[in-house]
This record gives sequence, structure tokens and C-alpha cells, in this order.
Amino acid sequence: MALQKASLSFRHTQRTNTLVKMAGAKEDGYSRRIMQYMEGFMVSKTLFTACELGVFDYLNASECPLSAMEVAQGLGTSMDGMGRLLSACVGLELLTTQHSADGQVLYSNTEMSTMFLMKSSPQSLYHSVEYNSNTTYLCWHNLTDAVREGKNQYEKAFGVSSKDLFEALYRSDEEMVRFMQLMNSVWNICGKDVVTAFDLSPFKSIYDLGGCSGALAKQCVSVYPECTVTILDLPKVTETCRKHFLSAEDVRISICEGDFFKNALPDADLFILARILHDWTEKQCRLLLAKVYQSCKPGGGVLLVEALLSEDNSGPLTVQLYSLDMLVQTEGRERKGSEYTSLLTAVGFSTIHICRAGNIYSVILALKG
Amino acid sequence: MALQKASLSFRHTQRTNTLVKMAGAKEDGYSRRIMQYMEGFMVSKTLFTACELGVFDYLNASECPLSAMEVAQGLGTSMDGMGRLLSACVGLELLTTQHSADGQVLYSNTEMSTMFLMKSSPQSLYHSVEYNSNTTYLCWHNLTDAVREGKNQYEKAFGVSSKDLFEALYRSDEEMVRFMQLMNSVWNICGKDVVTAFDLSPFKSIYDLGGCSGALAKQCVSVYPECTVTILDLPKVTETCRKHFLSAEDVRISICEGDFFKNALPDADLFILARILHDWTEKQCRLLLAKVYQSCKPGGGVLLVEALLSEDNSGPLTVQLYSLDMLVQTEGRERKGSEYTSLLTAVGFSTIHICRAGNIYSVILALKG
Repeated sequence: MALQKASLSFRHTQRTNTLVKMAGAKEDGYSRRIMQYMEGFMVSKTLFTACELGVFDYLNASECPLSAMEVAQGLGTSMDGMGRLLSACVGLELLTTQHSADGQVLYSNTEMSTMFLMKSSPQSLYHSVEYNSNTTYLCWHNLTDAVREGKNQYEKAFGVSSKDLFEALYRSDEEMVRFMQLMNSVWNICGKDVVTAFDLSPFKSIYDLGGCSGALAKQCVSVYPECTVTILDLPKVTETCRKHFLSAEDVRISICEGDFFKNALPDADLFILARILHDWTEKQCRLLLAKVYQSCKPGGGVLLVEALLSEDNSGPLTVQLYSLDMLVQTEGRERKGSEYTSLLTAVGFSTIHICRAGNIYSVILALKG
Repeated sequence: MALQKASLSFRHTQRTNTLVKMAGAKEDGYSRRIMQYMEGFMVSKTLFTACELGVFDYLNASECPLSAMEVAQGLGTSMDGMGRLLSACVGLELLTTQHSADGQVLYSNTEMSTMFLMKSSPQSLYHSVEYNSNTTYLCWHNLTDAVREGKNQYEKAFGVSSKDLFEALYRSDEEMVRFMQLMNSVWNICGKDVVTAFDLSPFKSIYDLGGCSGALAKQCVSVYPECTVTILDLPKVTETCRKHFLSAEDVRISICEGDFFKNALPDADLFILARILHDWTEKQCRLLLAKVYQSCKPGGGVLLVEALLSEDNSGPLTVQLYSLDMLVQTEGRERKGSEYTSLLTAVGFSTIHICRAGNIYSVILALKG
């Protein structure tokens, strides 16, 4: 057969009709956007795996940029898999490359990964990554069922009953420590903004209900030199907190074992509920807030820390996603500022102030008149 | 205690040091970016679940915008879960809202979701969504192991041996049909760009190796009125293709049962290998291309359709992610244009042209001199 090589042409560049072109560009934009949404889980897992394998720590410990072969050997992985992983990290701007004299590609961390992804960095998100990768990712695999049933998916994802939420969350000591490390990493990054959103210096005795690893308590005592903070949490949490998270230097932090639903609360000037109410139903929130109001000294108050949905429900996307996350993982939801205000006023709190504190969280201070 | 209400202040707005502010803004940017990567899987699953539950089809079938309650009732889901899902879809611009006279939020599809996410749309990505949600998402849960071991994760994800790749991929009839629908949806959207990237009218007898559901064959015969296309694929695939994907009207498309590694190839003017080589190792690619070259008539050629990595390996991100996807799901990888050129010239092909065809794929035409 006679093939006319000259006839090889780039037909898709030959469209002349401008309207067709414009419609095509819009369609391309839409399909590219949906493809991006579809790739979202690959982006997450690329980040998660690079962290879990210790890529950023290993590159940071090296005095010079390293080849994929060197990283693979150092971390005991396949050369092929590591090469692809590092290349995708370049696409995500978590790594940067240069070329060696003999043309090899050499990798090093970017400022972004050095700051947030090394295990040892003071602002490390490593433990958030670990929890999202091993727990949240699997819960979300059952999102369709969660929406159908309107309840969390621990049973399907991990084979544990979710009748008692924190029995499910703390289904093993390992899982409990992971959860505590997650909270620790969140407040390491966001805690300062949270405790400085309002001037809390008038409050001397502070209780952090569900205070977990004590990261927020530490931020509190470091900003306010006259306060003492008591972490109230379940016995096995406080035991781990004492062992692994608090040190002898934390003299103004104490620990109290208890279940804030079942046990009476001690009196205090300020109660902190940081990412607590979003775990629970309206009914449970009202119960808890009523107990808090009862135990609150006159002139004292409660500080809620939560991610807020906008009043018209239109965003922010992160909080809309978190509210689905609360569906697959808890009994609660994310709420609007006005919903928290209603809960607070219903139990008696009067003056209520709301303040954004950083990228994600808002802080609500409500006072007992 | 005397609380100075006037002292409640927004401390984080009081920073005066500009340098501190700038550093803070950069850090905020970094942490926001990493949070976005971490949320990627939530974005994917939100899209997947809305598709799987039929949200976009249901809203399209309705004559007017609907409340979350109406959608939940129509699709048999919890009201609470559906409300959160629809709200997150608004954040992703897959849905848009308006308010009813009595203040209820009413949802309808955006142009983007109408065009690509309804099951019945001609450009539907529904089946890509289904495959990614049920198969790919779970394979990627084992990305860390895949990088460690340098091999796919069917055994861990689905408990099937991956000794024979397509035995694993087609581990049940249901999975095989899902895979075929995935390919069908890919070529429904990208096929036209692919077959028109070069003028293929000189090629009269065309074989589509691994032609699967025949979607690309259909695009081919519709653009080139003088060609015939034969789909060569495994027996159980061709059987399903005949039953569910081809109709009596597709008179210029025929079907040939076979394994392109094990069986001899028939002579043809053009062989198409669309997303085939990326499944296989270099050695397997060379074997297959050598067989193709042998069976290719003089003046004929081979058309490769693949997503290409840039020559310096720096992108595009989508293809870097796809290459990791090939790691967790196949024996292959994504490659650079120059790598395909080397494979082609090694077996004897001479004139080689590469052309981008739409958002993702490139088309490589290599001729037998």
C-alpha cells in the first residue's frame, strides 16, 4: 500500500470554527477538573507513603542531594518503586531535583517538606499523615454506605462495634497512641493561634475536657504564666499522656481521670472543648454543655475550638469534607457558628464571641454572666 | 474573679513585625497546601459516592431543583448523610444551590456534572469513577508496600495471586465488565482525539490489540470510512464485547479471540496498542513489538496510545501518579516519548511521529519502512 507520509497531520489543531473551539476548551477544563478530583486519593497516598517510608527525614539527614538508588538502598525499598515515588513528589513540589556531573537526577527536600513532613520537625504533620493514611483512608472507603445509613463505618472498616465511639476509636493501644499523636500534631501547629485568639489571662483554673496528649494545655501554660491547666480524659488516655507526652517540667499541667459524660465536672474558671463537640450529636452536646455551665464559676466561661461551616452552608470545602469525615468516623458533624451559639445560649451562656484562629479553626468564647 | 471583657482582643491581628508576618504567610501557604494533599482522598470519595448513589442522574431527571430531603428520599439514603454530601458537592462546584420561597436550600447539577457525571451522558466518566472507587482506591491503600516490594498489590488488596496479571484484573466476571466499562468510558471521551491525531486513512486493515470493549474501534471506523478494525482480545473479553458492547450496526468491526503474547498475529496495515504497553515490563514490550513488526505489512505501522512523562521526568503530575498506579496495579510503568521510540526502533520501526491528543494521552505512529 502507498502511504502518503505527507498526509500525516495534526488534525486536532485544524478546527476552524471558533465556537466549537470555545466549547471544546470549556469541556476540556471540566474534564480536567474532574480528573483532578479523581486523582485526589493518589496525591494523598503519594504524600502518605513518602512520609511513612521516611523519605523526607532521610534526605534531610544527608549532607548532599541523593539519587533514587541511594534513597532506595538507604530505606530498603525497590529502586523502581522509589524512583517513581520521588518523581511524583517532584510533581507535588515536595522534592526538588538537580543533576550530578554524570547526568544522574539528585533529589532534595523543598522548604515545604522540611518544615512540615519530617518526623522530627517541630511543626511536623507526620502523625496526621499516619492517621489519615491508616485509619481515615479506610473509613472513607465506605463513604457510600455511611451516607446511606447515616452512621460511622468502624464496623465495616475495622470489624469493631461502634456502639461506644471511643471504644471503637481506641480499639487497640496502638490505635489510641496514633490518635493521641494525631491530636498532638494538630495542636502543635494550630494550638498557638487557638489559645491566643482571645486574651485568656483572666482565667486562672482551666480544664481541658478531652485534653488528650496535652498539646493544647502546653500552649496554654506557655502563653499565660498565671494559669494552671487540668487535662480531663479517659483513664487509659491519661495514663499514656503521663507516660509518653508530659514531662516533669510541665508543672502547671495536671491530669484528672474521668468520662465527661458520666462523671461530675470539677469547678473551674474556663473549660476548653477543642474538637470535642464535633464528635457528638446535638443531644449529647447539650448534655455536656449544660454540665459545663453548672461547673463554671461566675464570670468564667467555655472555649470551643472547631472548624466552622459558613452560615449559608456554601463552604469552606475543607469543613464540608470534615463534616463527611465526622459522618464516617464519629457520631457528630461540623457546624455553623450560629449552631454553636444556639447550643451555648440554650444552656445559659450569655456573651459569645467568635474568632478565626489560623487556617482551619475558629474559637468561640462564651461567658457565664 | 473579675474578667475584663474589654480585654478580649484578636491577638493574631496585632502582629506588627512585617518579617514575622511574611514568614507566617509562607508557612500558612505551605501547611494549607499539604492539608489539601491530605484531603485529596476525601475529594475523590465525595465525587465517587455522589456518582455511585446516582445524585447527578436523579437531579437531572427532576424538573426542578430539589432539597436534600427529596434527594435522600428518592435515593433511599439517610437525610443527614445526603445533606452533608450535597453540601460538599457544592464546594466542589459539582452542584449549585438556590433557595425556595420558604428558605430551603435546593440543589441542581452544574454544567460540569451534567456533562461528565451522569450515567447516561455520552461523555460519562461514571465507569471511570466506579473503577477508581472500588478497585484502584483499595490497591493504592498498599502503595507503601508496592514501593517497598516493587510490585503490584492485588494479593494484599483482593486476595488473588497476580502471577498472571489479567487473571488478577479479571478475577470475576463482574470485575472484568467493570474494567471493560472503564476502558469504554476512557475512549468515549479521549478516543476521537486519539484516532484523529494522525491521518490514518491510508491504513485499510487495522487490528486493535487488547481492543477490549471496542470503543476505540468504533471511533476509528466512524472517522475512516474505508477501514475495517479487528479487536483482538482474550476469549472471555471478546465474548462479553460481543454480548454487551458491539451491535449489529458495527459492520466494519470484527472480533478475533487470542492472547497477543501467546498466539501468532495476523498480517495488517496498522496495529493499535492503546494503553497496552504501560501494563508490561520492557522485556514484554520488546517481545510484543517485535511480533507486531513481523506481522506489519510493508508501509504499515503501529499506533501507540499512552500518557507520556516529560523527558526530564519533572511531570506532568498526572502521569507521575499514573506511573505509581501502574506500579500498584500492573507489571508496567508510564514512560517518556524517547523510551517508546527506543523500544520501537530496537525492533525495526523507522519513521516515528509523536503527537499530543487532548488532555492526557499522546499518540505515537511508527512505520515499517
